[in-house]
Amino acid sequence: MDDVTKKLFDAVDSKKDAFIQRLSDWVAIKSISCQADTRPETIRMVHFVKEEFEKLGAKMEICENPNKTEFFPDGQELQLPPICLGVYPAVKMENKKTILIYGHVDVQPAKFSDGWDTEPFVLTEKDGKLYGRGSTDDKGPVLGWLLILETMQELGIECPVNLRFCFEGMEEVDSSGLDDLIFKVRNDFFCEGIDGTCISDNYWLGTEKPCLTYGLRGIACFSVTVECAASDLHSGIFGGTVREAMTDLIQIMGSLVNGDGSINIEGINDEVDLVTQAEMETYKPIDFCIEEFKKCHSVNLLHDTKERTLQGRWRYPSLSLHGIEGAFADPGEKTVIPRRVIGKFSIRMVPSMTGEAVISCVEKHVEMMKAKLNTPNKVWLNCSGADKPWFGAPNGFLYEAGKIATKNVYGVDPDMTREGGSIPVTLSFQEATKNPVILIPMGAGDDGAHGQNEKINIKNYIGGIKLFGSFLHELGKQ
Amino acid sequence: MDDVTKKLFDAVDSKKDAFIQRLSDWVAIKSISCQADTRPETIRMVHFVKEEFEKLGAKMEICENPNKTEFFPDGQELQLPPICLGVYPAVKMENKKTILIYGHVDVQPAKFSDGWDTEPFVLTEKDGKLYGRGSTDDKGPVLGWLLILETMQELGIECPVNLRFCFEGMEEVDSSGLDDLIFKVRNDFFCEGIDGTCISDNYWLGTEKPCLTYGLRGIACFSVTVECAASDLHSGIFGGTVREAMTDLIQIMGSLVNGDGSINIEGINDEVDLVTQAEMETYKPIDFCIEEFKKCHSVNLLHDTKERTLQGRWRYPSLSLHGIEGAFADPGEKTVIPRRVIGKFSIRMVPSMTGEAVISCVEKHVEMMKAKLNTPNKVWLNCSGADKPWFGAPNGFLYEAGKIATKNVYGVDPDMTREGGSIPVTLSFQEATKNPVILIPMGAGDDGAHGQNEKINIKNYIGGIKLFGSFLHELGKQ
Repeated sequence: MDDVTKKLFDAVDSKKDAFIQRLSDWVAIKSISCQADTRPETIRMVHFVKEEFEKLGAKMEICENPNKTEFFPDGQELQLPPICLGVYPAVKMENKKTILIYGHVDVQPAKFSDGWDTEPFVLTEKDGKLYGRGSTDDKGPVLGWLLILETMQELGIECPVNLRFCFEGMEEVDSSGLDDLIFKVRNDFFCEGIDGTCISDNYWLGTEKPCLTYGLRGIACFSVTVECAASDLHSGIFGGTVREAMTDLIQIMGSLVNGDGSINIEGINDEVDLVTQAEMETYKPIDFCIEEFKKCHSVNLLHDTKERTLQGRWRYPSLSLHGIEGAFADPGEKTVIPRRVIGKFSIRMVPSMTGEAVISCVEKHVEMMKAKLNTPNKVWLNCSGADKPWFGAPNGFLYEAGKIATKNVYGVDPDMTREGGSIPVTLSFQEATKNPVILIPMGAGDDGAHGQNEKINIKNYIGGIKLFGSFLHELGKQ
Repeated sequence: MDDVTKKLFDAVDSKKDAFIQRLSDWVAIKSISCQADTRPETIRMVHFVKEEFEKLGAKMEICENPNKTEFFPDGQELQLPPICLGVYPAVKMENKKTILIYGHVDVQPAKFSDGWDTEPFVLTEKDGKLYGRGSTDDKGPVLGWLLILETMQELGIECPVNLRFCFEGMEEVDSSGLDDLIFKVRNDFFCEGIDGTCISDNYWLGTEKPCLTYGLRGIACFSVTVECAASDLHSGIFGGTVREAMTDLIQIMGSLVNGDGSINIEGINDEVDLVTQAEMETYKPIDFCIEEFKKCHSVNLLHDTKERTLQGRWRYPSLSLHGIEGAFADPGEKTVIPRRVIGKFSIRMVPSMTGEAVISCVEKHVEMMKAKLNTPNKVWLNCSGADKPWFGAPNGFLYEAGKIATKNVYGVDPDMTREGGSIPVTLSFQEATKNPVILIPMGAGDDGAHGQNEKINIKNYIGGIKLFGSFLHELGKQ
């Protein structure tokens, strides 16, 4: 570890409390992107991030979302959050690489009543962990970049590379408008002069060992709607006389996936890459204990080996049933026949599946089920779009810098992993910049992104800020 | 129609606007019994009704609920609503029959965002209809008794019979505590000296023809819980590696009932009474048009004859799937694997099914499915209790008075019907008083009890108040 790195790490350690306070300010903004009532807060969050980076001296701009507005299912038209772009330092340094940093500042829904132990939008420290929605996904990491750059500035360390920033507020839905910004509206910004892209929006596999990530699954989100009446019906008066929407929907949802996780939709697995011997070798060195994984989350695993579990996570497709809109979902009893119910599910896609083929298979399946059920009820399928999987090469200058930085902070070589989640724009950045992308996670595998009690360990938060600093410093040496 | 009846009817007509305003006051109280946050309002509603009847001069009392408190699924213990009893006139008249009037003043859940066109707790008049939660189920009818007694008093008409009142606030859940009050705590009030019981808590079959009702289905409410993790999981990271609770729950819910409405639970139909030729005859005179029923509610019917549709409604069991607690139920997308999901369903029971047998069949079925799914997830069944069906004899003094009163108000003879809904205590009253019960509905078949846009037609509301008056007057002649 060189002197600059050491100086940087010491400074980060000394500012721990201030850095936690900053994260608290970021978490407090309820930037839930998928809900209409929090859309203003999501927009505010994007502007807030712009102002934060401007204080650093970065040249920031707010770009109107190219898709401008979206329609919610209830018919209301809402403005889409803008996208924040930036350049730092404001004046480009010659003979330095240019790195694009992407992150998102919107979050998943969260309510205390969902089963949180603390208020989700009040960052709460407990046993070395910082609980709050967005703490790890993805406000902590975005703020991490800002904080290390502030620290470098305070220490008089020149920014080691030219940076471009792209921070959005629709990642948790579908990154609406971002692809248009990248490939059309601002292709000057994205498609020229970027040597590599860096994203911190995933997690370590476990809780102890850091990793660098070179692959992601894609995702296609679906909803099936069944409608059986003009309004909800009393189950005493109508039960036994009318064809109920819930009965049909539950049959359709039940036809999609088996208990063992296998997908029941014809053709869905046709395009999945076969496992090669070379791929099998890549699992061997990875530090991942299925017993710990199982215990940590109190889950029951579908597979009994490390290799098959990792494959289930990142190289095979999966289908999850998320819930039903329109049916009774509160505690207690309500003996109603819901008039219209909307079943939500998503399919994680892997190489070489394509969105077109997946959507087509699901459409055919729903048509087949509709025919099989012979239901007179209205049944229709919606797909909000499909995001492709991403698969990179885990070598080259980005990964070399990432390996050194990881060793500097954590004293170990990182595992080289793929991930099961989806960051829709990773592939877009790779295609637009025609240069590599690296995923460099900050949080741990038990952070609980999207769930109740999402958290980031103080160790990971502070370690991640150092990691980003060391990573940029190493890139500057190249 | 005699002079007293005519005088009474004219007075009711003249007070229409005031009567609508009174209903508006009653509807405004959010007495949703199944939800913890509205429990104080439910309790307030019971006290409010006591005060309303006291103004009439009735001798009212508030009885603590014999079950005292209940535990909600989240662990909180809440006071149960009390039960309001009353006697009118305060001094018993000799040589007059004593009639028990029962009603409930709690309501089903309702939120504007459920899809109501108006605020559910603001009674709103539109095209001769009064929209509001509880307008028809069951605040309108309870208030109707009060208003006709007030009117009689104002006209100087002596109350034709001795009345006892029983108004509760837990009907929409399970009438918790009421059976204990009837058979134990206040068996003096219920078990002696009551000649007949009258309940107005159901509806006409259609929208034009009045009816009197002599049978009800019972109900057993169930929830199946499946738990797969300590907290909600990110479907990218966990999808394809863990056994998901939703997958299991959807399979279990899907195994309960077929699209054609037939119940898939072994043994459930074993105790259902066979249809006799005599029973078949009773359907013939009934004015019920399945085409109108279908069109009015925009539903698809399971059966293509009037007889079979009525049988499906009131003499065969039915199973409805109501919804899932714990899964994502809001608009938008949330790509989460819910940690614990609770599927809610209910079975409407008919003679001679018993709660014990139904619960036992469902328990066995869930155990069978658990074994079939071979799931390592935690699966458990809850039943909040089963209410027996009720089947009376549609003749005797109550029904004779009801027939005359119906003819006086509407100019036609009522249909003699059974109903598919459940009023748990009907059978209890029959058993406790050892005397007959009559159901004398106020609302129309399209009122939408339990659904969005619940309403009562002004015609039915005002007609119902007259009906109650004429009914009591006819009872007084006997």
